[in-house]
Amino acid sequence: MDHLYEKTLKTTEIFKGRVIDLQVDEVELPNGKTSTRELVKHPGAVAILPITKEGKLVLVRQYRKALNKTIVEIPAGKLEAGENPFDSAKRELEEETGYKTEKLELLLSFYTSPGFADELIYMYWTNQLEKGKTNMDDDEFLDILEVTLEEAEQMIKDQIIHDAKTAYAVQFLKMRKLENL
Amino acid sequence: MDHLYEKTLKTTEIFKGRVIDLQVDEVELPNGKTSTRELVKHPGAVAILPITKEGKLVLVRQYRKALNKTIVEIPAGKLEAGENPFDSAKRELEEETGYKTEKLELLLSFYTSPGFADELIYMYWTNQLEKGKTNMDDDEFLDILEVTLEEAEQMIKDQIIHDAKTAYAVQFLKMRKLENL
Repeated sequence: MDHLYEKTLKTTEIFKGRVIDLQVDEVELPNGKTSTRELVKHPGAVAILPITKEGKLVLVRQYRKALNKTIVEIPAGKLEAGENPFDSAKRELEEETGYKTEKLELLLSFYTSPGFADELIYMYWTNQLEKGKTNMDDDEFLDILEVTLEEAEQMIKDQIIHDAKTAYAVQFLKMRKLENL
Repeated sequence: MDHLYEKTLKTTEIFKGRVIDLQVDEVELPNGKTSTRELVKHPGAVAILPITKEGKLVLVRQYRKALNKTIVEIPAGKLEAGENPFDSAKRELEEETGYKTEKLELLLSFYTSPGFADELIYMYWTNQLEKGKTNMDDDEFLDILEVTLEEAEQMIKDQIIHDAKTAYAVQFLKMRKLENL
């Protein structure tokens, strides 16, 4: 057994929502003492870094209630029940930006907040975009933007881009440029 | 007013915890319809990318109850009440890794999960480390590792490093190397 493992003594379900659930686990720590862990359950998500023929990033501007502000992000969305990440990424890309693609490459997956949530994001990228048509969710409102790498870097400085997945995506693009890819 | 803004009609507090709170807001959407937003409140956090004289990354291995697995991350921790991010980063670095520094540079800040949480991480880096002494929290158990960039990249492939802030930090280090910094 991993010497850092925490054994679950009791799980209390607090909330079941449309997007997230919340539970509190009582755990036994490695030193034998007990503590509690507040855990958010999330279905997981996909994010896509779409690059146009001109080398621009396709981004979406969206109001985020949790932050009480509008920020600019790469297209992303929750996994639907039974849906695989690749199909979800193709679907979200077209729904949010109006671009289709047959070529999506998985960059990596990462947990966003391992201290309290199990949200896992699968991040894809593509530079082969064809024109499709947008189809927003009922409760989704967003603007579509196409920006250069330099514009995206300025948006990070100005905290208009202000989330982890988009910061990662912009840095990835900068790295590709340094590598002359 | 921002045309994407969602007006709060009603806030229902669901849970107040040690680390996070949960509330559900009823909102008026830009089209006049109503919807609900499930919102996790978090105090914010700091993360530090510490680089040794030999160019190695200092990382910590930690069991994450939310993921039911042990992963390797850059040192990080929650902001304490009234604490500024810079002081918090200096404190967390020493407590978790036993390294002290007088020079910490803010790389950027980012929200980790803007769809449902307001957790904001301030990310610092330093390559000026002095020996201090560790001092873990009561409910914190972790191993300290020092790895090369290549080892860290392999850990991402193997999903031993598997969270957004650490993936960002490793990519930052790779970019610095490409820029010959």
